[in-house]
Amino acid sequence: MVGGGFGGLSAARALARAGGSVTLIDRNNFHLFQPLSYQVATGALSPGEIAVPLRRVLAPFPRARVLLAEVSGFDLHERLVHCRPMAPAAEPFSEPYDVLVVAGGSSYSYFGHEHWRPYALEVKSLQSALRVRSRLLAAFEAAEIAREHAEQRRLLTFAVIGAGPTGVEMAGQIAELAHEVLPGELRRARSRQADVVLVESAARVLPAFPPPLSLHAERSLQALGVRLATQHTVVEIARGLLRLRQRDGTEQTLEAETIIWAAGVSASPLAGALAAAAGGELDRSGRLAVEADLTLPGHPEVFAIGDMVRLRSTSGGTATPLPGLAPVAMQEGRYVAALIAARSSGRGQPATFRYRDKGTLATIGRARAVAQLGRLRLWGFPAWAIWLTVHIFYLIGFENRLIVLTRWAHSFFTRGRGARLITEEAGGPREGPVARPPHDSADRR
Amino acid sequence: MVGGGFGGLSAARALARAGGSVTLIDRNNFHLFQPLSYQVATGALSPGEIAVPLRRVLAPFPRARVLLAEVSGFDLHERLVHCRPMAPAAEPFSEPYDVLVVAGGSSYSYFGHEHWRPYALEVKSLQSALRVRSRLLAAFEAAEIAREHAEQRRLLTFAVIGAGPTGVEMAGQIAELAHEVLPGELRRARSRQADVVLVESAARVLPAFPPPLSLHAERSLQALGVRLATQHTVVEIARGLLRLRQRDGTEQTLEAETIIWAAGVSASPLAGALAAAAGGELDRSGRLAVEADLTLPGHPEVFAIGDMVRLRSTSGGTATPLPGLAPVAMQEGRYVAALIAARSSGRGQPATFRYRDKGTLATIGRARAVAQLGRLRLWGFPAWAIWLTVHIFYLIGFENRLIVLTRWAHSFFTRGRGARLITEEAGGPREGPVARPPHDSADRR
Repeated sequence: MVGGGFGGLSAARALARAGGSVTLIDRNNFHLFQPLSYQVATGALSPGEIAVPLRRVLAPFPRARVLLAEVSGFDLHERLVHCRPMAPAAEPFSEPYDVLVVAGGSSYSYFGHEHWRPYALEVKSLQSALRVRSRLLAAFEAAEIAREHAEQRRLLTFAVIGAGPTGVEMAGQIAELAHEVLPGELRRARSRQADVVLVESAARVLPAFPPPLSLHAERSLQALGVRLATQHTVVEIARGLLRLRQRDGTEQTLEAETIIWAAGVSASPLAGALAAAAGGELDRSGRLAVEADLTLPGHPEVFAIGDMVRLRSTSGGTATPLPGLAPVAMQEGRYVAALIAARSSGRGQPATFRYRDKGTLATIGRARAVAQLGRLRLWGFPAWAIWLTVHIFYLIGFENRLIVLTRWAHSFFTRGRGARLITEEAGGPREGPVARPPHDSADRR
Repeated sequence: MVGGGFGGLSAARALARAGGSVTLIDRNNFHLFQPLSYQVATGALSPGEIAVPLRRVLAPFPRARVLLAEVSGFDLHERLVHCRPMAPAAEPFSEPYDVLVVAGGSSYSYFGHEHWRPYALEVKSLQSALRVRSRLLAAFEAAEIAREHAEQRRLLTFAVIGAGPTGVEMAGQIAELAHEVLPGELRRARSRQADVVLVESAARVLPAFPPPLSLHAERSLQALGVRLATQHTVVEIARGLLRLRQRDGTEQTLEAETIIWAAGVSASPLAGALAAAAGGELDRSGRLAVEADLTLPGHPEVFAIGDMVRLRSTSGGTATPLPGLAPVAMQEGRYVAALIAARSSGRGQPATFRYRDKGTLATIGRARAVAQLGRLRLWGFPAWAIWLTVHIFYLIGFENRLIVLTRWAHSFFTRGRGARLITEEAGGPREGPVARPPHDSADRR
């Protein structure tokens, strides 16, 4: 079992519960409740509240093991996973398997513009969310000290690229922070005038949702003070600088201290490693083509699930990929566990995997959300109440649920944000990509 | 006002409450409840639960400002504080004052052995406590993967140097983690056999407490499986290696992956900066001598408080320094605020500062503590109940109190530790002081 995300952990738990001997390999010692990592990035929640140690989750199952290691490759012939331990000074090792499940997830893709990466922030991993938190708060702190007007404006300009659920949530949270939480705390910086821009190349935000819900989301965002830049594509990202192009070809330059990337997604390199080992195919986003039962073509003992795969359609080609959502990965994980259990007990193979879409949700801010549940469309407070219930329900660990509820209840009434701590050195002047006056960057290009 | 620790924040709050115009300068954007930072280091609490944004604490006072900057020096003649902003790319600036209060705190001293510092971990700041957490957990993870017996033993050896309250608490928590929490989660590493050594040069642990309480603390530590090495001094610290000398001169070498330093303390460099600006004197630990009203000799408008000062006795020499505890700093902070308010309202100067010792506490583990309250000495559960009450009471922020209580209640009954996350890269193989087989270090010396 490789990967302790939603897919990998679901499969591992289901297999362990069925009495199987399971080894879970991950680079992190925790499972991250990724849909809430943007809340860590804005100081609404603490890391310990949305992450739970993998060892603790699997502690009740004596035949389940956790290894903290990075997977460097596969030997499908000898049935080995090659690992590099994350622990200091430990030697690489290879772990044998009978059945392999790979759930490597995905990361952000810069559409071939890898040189943008150092200047953009992400909220995918817990570590990167903590970096965003430090950088975001440091920008407000710098604005409180800055004396020049132009410098203040650059520091208080926040660009979020990509208006999918993550981008929408992130922009909404930054706007709440700037326009509602911080004005009472900052004395010189005019955080109420902060410019929070949400950039999206499509014609509307949340393009995967039906148009009426996009409209509701847009109104909610505007009410929070988010500036929408739909039909804008990114031409360039540099230090403290963002260049956008509109449909009609006009370009504009935005001087922004904080640039957050939440746009394209590409599959984990493990998809490529598996394809190399098995001779499989990858699509444009690096996703591995798998059979309808989530096995690798020609390798019934190797499964791949989650964001890193694309189901082959029955006609042999590849079908529309399933969305990269937690429910998809979790259903795939449980399906694979059931299939493995059925095989080992000699029962017949279950039917091929089918995703049961229970709906999608996106939250925009305090008491604002949109929800698509089958044919039912909700927005505003009802959607937000469902969002809250679902997220609390799926948070792993009773203690975390209680703590997150306490924090949310508190911040709902006070609009406070308790975990606003600058703990990463990237927030300091000597480390990380340091902002420079924008003309510097312009010269360098 | 320089420094947002217990002393500085107490003074700032009291002054702001009295309607004064206050500027608080700190390198961190948060106040840390330092007595609990060891709980972050062992994953019992999350950073957000023991730290609160300074801005939020001072938000109710419109005339109170917070600046995120490092103080680089003082000009007492022109009445300026020279600052380097922590925010990226911001210019140095000087902040004028009418009255200055400096509360710079202290850091660990290596008694002149600065080359030990890179190999030892500390739990003084939030950042260093997070580093300890990652390194501590990574050692157990590495032990789970390690195949050689000697390597396993080195990884599962934890040395804590200095048996003051911090050292005792740290050793107790590591022992609980190794002997009670992790055995149910690790499959290969024998964490029950982990060696947790508490090194102290004095004849007993908690030397500042009365001997009977030291004895109780020693029994509690031994019950948790901590090995006591009293009357041992440190001769050398290197990578994964600790050399100790007993009273009789015999030396021994300990191969330990994790070495935590909680021994000597030296005053903040700001004490030296003030001494240089005012021509004052420093003691052996770098503490600045201040008058009985906490002003700098010859500078009635400059106050220094907390761990970084030593009161001059009335006879002109220096008295025994007050202990470096939160209550001392807080009482000093409030005294200074009262004095400043009295002066500006034309009332007479209050009496000189006198520390009111309400007692000292040290906790060792779950339901184990010792307390000295005036003449009353308590240990075991009663002492622990008092410790719990006092710490919850003094935690700033209602929300934090509630969350910490929830977490403690949960872990009291389940012995779990929810915030066991490896988030610092220092835990990885490519950054920070990496452990090497001990003979390497021995060769290099």
